[in-house]
Amino acid sequence: MQLSADSYTLALPSWIGDALADVPDVLPTREERMRLVHALADRNWREGNGGPFAALVAESATGRIVSVGVNVVLGSGVSSGHAEVMALGTAQRAVGSWDLGGAGLPEHELVVNWRPCVQCYGATMWSGVRTLVVAGSGPELEEITTFDEGPMREDWADQFRARGIDVVDGVLRDEALAVFRAYRESVDVGGSLVYNARAAD
Amino acid sequence: MQLSADSYTLALPSWIGDALADVPDVLPTREERMRLVHALADRNWREGNGGPFAALVAESATGRIVSVGVNVVLGSGVSSGHAEVMALGTAQRAVGSWDLGGAGLPEHELVVNWRPCVQCYGATMWSGVRTLVVAGSGPELEEITTFDEGPMREDWADQFRARGIDVVDGVLRDEALAVFRAYRESVDVGGSLVYNARAAD
Repeated sequence: MQLSADSYTLALPSWIGDALADVPDVLPTREERMRLVHALADRNWREGNGGPFAALVAESATGRIVSVGVNVVLGSGVSSGHAEVMALGTAQRAVGSWDLGGAGLPEHELVVNWRPCVQCYGATMWSGVRTLVVAGSGPELEEITTFDEGPMREDWADQFRARGIDVVDGVLRDEALAVFRAYRESVDVGGSLVYNARAAD
Repeated sequence: MQLSADSYTLALPSWIGDALADVPDVLPTREERMRLVHALADRNWREGNGGPFAALVAESATGRIVSVGVNVVLGSGVSSGHAEVMALGTAQRAVGSWDLGGAGLPEHELVVNWRPCVQCYGATMWSGVRTLVVAGSGPELEEITTFDEGPMREDWADQFRARGIDVVDGVLRDEALAVFRAYRESVDVGGSLVYNARAAD
């Protein structure tokens, strides 16, 4: 048997360099980090790259930004290319380890513009980050955007904490909802695509 | 801000070509497909590439193999590089779409040597496959290998079915357990690494 593909690459879109050009290397507060995530999430859907989702990995104590991620499903043709997977994968490439909580590394956090979907919930859990920071975690994301986030357990945050991963919720929450609403308005006029499971049916 | 990494590549290990050399392009029965998955899972940990996990994507009706995946966490340095993510990503690259259930494509299935972890549960859900085939789904994987599979819901299979994804369980189950036991024996003598969340603590 010959495989037609034995690897794949997930790459951030080319506009990311432009979007980060004037952003400092260090964002000391969580609000500043989340403001960058919201800006990337909003630009991502407007660029036609994927959904209105973005993430970044920062050193918790200093706020040095290690990586950013946006949803690249449509751009890459790979369904697992969510913002969290991109940010975590490029952060691991940057630090040279699959374990962002490894010996000798500073503590890392993942900052996302809403509670991750069930795939990225697991991806976060296995990444080595010590903290997950989200703008919100309620049903609003699914209600506004109509994206299916998958079957999550009620105790999702406690399950993180049981594994030594802290959860910080509610950072710039209203600003997250504003991005989702702008995206939904575009979907409703036919300008954007929601790509759920079994989208073709 | 300058990113130190703006992309990453996940690649199957070089021994995969050798492992597939004598395998036909088409494996008509699910037992044959699972037997290949078990062989790849067993070889993967012995090669030091990651855990004893493998997967493949096949066209359900014909049994044509579209892609294979093994766990490449240790080899790639990316924690999301589980067997399912590799098999799904390279299958999507092979068919040229993020949606393996897209219009004009034959129905695809993901064959895995046990119930996926919570990350790959979501990755499977968003991939477009119409069927998940597993060798087993009970606590044996975690008990034998000590890998944490994450917080799954009791109704995980019903949640697949509610999204149009069938679940077939119990294909070559004993053979799966034999692979896990061989791996565990290697771990117990210090020959292999289990890389759970926060492994460094």
